[in-house]
Amino acid sequence: MRVIFNEELGLVADDLDRMALSVRDAIKKAGRSMLKCDVETAQEVIDGDADIDRLHASIIDQCIRLLAKQSPVATDLRVVVSTLSLSATFERMGDLARHIAETARRSYPDPTLPEEVVPLFQQMQEFLDVLADRLVDMLSDRDTTIAERIIINDDKMDKLHQKTFEYALSDDWRGSRQQLIDMVLVARFMERLGDHGVSAARRVVYIVSGFDPSKDPRDLDSDLD
Amino acid sequence: MRVIFNEELGLVADDLDRMALSVRDAIKKAGRSMLKCDVETAQEVIDGDADIDRLHASIIDQCIRLLAKQSPVATDLRVVVSTLSLSATFERMGDLARHIAETARRSYPDPTLPEEVVPLFQQMQEFLDVLADRLVDMLSDRDTTIAERIIINDDKMDKLHQKTFEYALSDDWRGSRQQLIDMVLVARFMERLGDHGVSAARRVVYIVSGFDPSKDPRDLDSDLD
Repeated sequence: MRVIFNEELGLVADDLDRMALSVRDAIKKAGRSMLKCDVETAQEVIDGDADIDRLHASIIDQCIRLLAKQSPVATDLRVVVSTLSLSATFERMGDLARHIAETARRSYPDPTLPEEVVPLFQQMQEFLDVLADRLVDMLSDRDTTIAERIIINDDKMDKLHQKTFEYALSDDWRGSRQQLIDMVLVARFMERLGDHGVSAARRVVYIVSGFDPSKDPRDLDSDLD
Repeated sequence: MRVIFNEELGLVADDLDRMALSVRDAIKKAGRSMLKCDVETAQEVIDGDADIDRLHASIIDQCIRLLAKQSPVATDLRVVVSTLSLSATFERMGDLARHIAETARRSYPDPTLPEEVVPLFQQMQEFLDVLADRLVDMLSDRDTTIAERIIINDDKMDKLHQKTFEYALSDDWRGSRQQLIDMVLVARFMERLGDHGVSAARRVVYIVSGFDPSKDPRDLDSDLD
């Protein structure tokens, strides 16, 4: 069910879809550049972030124009306000992908991560690749089933993130201090990408159902963990 | 110059001021708890974050009601849209303060940071204390002079943040791996608090002047560094 109210809102929705596609590519390429020491791909992600920022600025302008000219109410209003929020989330996800790519570029030609920890980060990246695909599908179809799957799956990323710390503190750690710093930051960027994915999924549930799962009291509790 | 258009908008503005005050306290207490190994204060920040989240949820509801009922245009619309964005920024700043407090609580009774690096983090915290005060003043007065000062001063934090890496990689480093992990993360949280402060300042410039300094082309360039 695609919720389009009029031509102008349809154009913003197209831009938001375009943004999701760009962010998906940035996430996949950033992970690959870091895991494969591929500096050209890293540079592509870094250069491409400006396009994501421009799309974000254009979406804000379009939403404000829509609010001023059409004074939407009910579902239409929910869509416009949620579009502002989704666009901000995607912009931030683009930044995080860029940060990962920047780390890959800085460490090049050395690998960003010590060899032993690469399989763990590959698992994290596989999680993010699936998330990135789901975000695109969820958005173009306003599909709450996909959104709910994203929300439920989030603790997998948290567990993988936790493992990076356990590894860094174990006797098996062989990396340099620079690698420890990079690993901690990249793991954080990846975990934040997962969080933002969940936040985007909640937004889509809110658009479609009018219920905001971020206000679920259980959820507020878990946020305090 | 305080821009209040009607009673209802005044109530949201009051809530946003309240949020800024809570975030200011959280930032100051989080830094103190970490630098002084004060676990009670850390716990206060952690517990208090739920109030900030509730204020955020209430501000979103109020803004959506305002948009639906009053269909604001021009400056009124800018204020409502910016209030949504400022509230999201403050909510995130509350989270970051909580993360710092959680790190202090986890390391307690050991100090979070090795002794040698404490003066550097004290400088970062002094920067954030001033920023937190300025955010409150800027917001209650819609004062673009303060906002511009926040925007200009941001590179001080970036330089201090850079120094934490230099120190961690130098021969002077004596800390444990756990301390290195905590230091890298806390420095990142503090740097992000600075970034969010700048983003809030830009929002206030936008409310007052209608010009969005985040779209300054020079700024887009510096974001690519």
